[in-house]
Amino acid sequence: MTHIHTEEHFSGSEIVRDIVIGMSDGLTVPFALAAGLTGASQGNSVIVTAGLAEIVAGSIAMGLGGYLAGKTEIEHYVSELKREYLEVEMYPEKEKQEVREVFEEYGLSKESTEAIVNELSLDKDKWVKFMMRYELGLDQPNINRAHHSALAIGLSYVVGGIVPLSPYFSFFTDNPNDGFAYSCYVTAICLFAFGFFKTKIIGQPPLMGAFKTLFIGAIAAGSAYIIARLISG
Amino acid sequence: MTHIHTEEHFSGSEIVRDIVIGMSDGLTVPFALAAGLTGASQGNSVIVTAGLAEIVAGSIAMGLGGYLAGKTEIEHYVSELKREYLEVEMYPEKEKQEVREVFEEYGLSKESTEAIVNELSLDKDKWVKFMMRYELGLDQPNINRAHHSALAIGLSYVVGGIVPLSPYFSFFTDNPNDGFAYSCYVTAICLFAFGFFKTKIIGQPPLMGAFKTLFIGAIAAGSAYIIARLISG
Repeated sequence: MTHIHTEEHFSGSEIVRDIVIGMSDGLTVPFALAAGLTGASQGNSVIVTAGLAEIVAGSIAMGLGGYLAGKTEIEHYVSELKREYLEVEMYPEKEKQEVREVFEEYGLSKESTEAIVNELSLDKDKWVKFMMRYELGLDQPNINRAHHSALAIGLSYVVGGIVPLSPYFSFFTDNPNDGFAYSCYVTAICLFAFGFFKTKIIGQPPLMGAFKTLFIGAIAAGSAYIIARLISG
Repeated sequence: MTHIHTEEHFSGSEIVRDIVIGMSDGLTVPFALAAGLTGASQGNSVIVTAGLAEIVAGSIAMGLGGYLAGKTEIEHYVSELKREYLEVEMYPEKEKQEVREVFEEYGLSKESTEAIVNELSLDKDKWVKFMMRYELGLDQPNINRAHHSALAIGLSYVVGGIVPLSPYFSFFTDNPNDGFAYSCYVTAICLFAFGFFKTKIIGQPPLMGAFKTLFIGAIAAGSAYIIARLISG
């Protein structure tokens, strides 16, 4: 029961982490793009069009990219697994030597190491599982997890991106500078809040994380603003 | 000597991987944004301004974000290391039980497991190192590596982003549709080539990877184009 509970807890916080990653990236780049276009004296309709095009492109690149990367990871794992089974079958002595090397690092005695090697080699499945995990550092990827992760990141990017863009929508204001001011305001609050939760999740000081996330957004938006202003100057 | 050679080889391919990641993202999003703005019948100067603002914002978000994430990872490792030393000191029996659990998974006998536990607990440094690696799955992060990685990804994003944007530059053409046509052409070639190398590096069928990368770029750009066209009516 404890084990099941831990797994559930972990998977829940992973989804939260994906949402936070997608959302804080979504907050940063569209915010900075809109700021840049305000700096280049573009009207609100251009800012909104460019912003939405960026959100669509960015979320697809992140989401679909993540989905296909997840599938590639599975294929990689399966091909390595096949190779490891083959090696255990064909070159058992070489593979035993690799197990020895894993344990030599931790200063185990020759006797204990030999005992481990011999016991491990009795069960090919467990032996291969051990090699995958401790020699190659590969964990069995969870394909559903990869898909959910891609979806969560992509959708959160859209939701995050709408926040800095919404103040430029025509039913709020027609003035890009007003849109920019409100965009700074709501985005700063959201970046701070997401930075806070993002760092809290990994068990780091959350206030420091909140300032870091806000700082990245400010640097990105400030630089985009200056560059766009210089070009259109 | 073999060991040193392997490390060098690994670090070299990691930098290549970072460059390829940054560049294929840089190719995709600015390409799709420019396509979207062409769909919204914007002039070349707006497309170039928005594109450059996006490249600046995206590379900073990726680069600076990666840099700070690397620093956070170090802090996380150091705090876990401290906690593990404390636990080994204060609750050695609990930590010994955790070592047992690691090996029980692989069906080792009680005797071998006890021998490992007893030998490991003789040297606190190696014991903690073992717990970090096999219980928590944490490798000592390389801070220089994280910084180089952030820099490589950020700069490659800039280089990659310039490719799809350059056909819209005023010394090439003033016509957005011409810019778009050339942009599709050069970006498709680059996405295909980078997809090819990206998949070759991880040892997967490279032609399949080339088509996948091209596919993501096409979907992202096509969607951005349609959305922007719908908004601009």
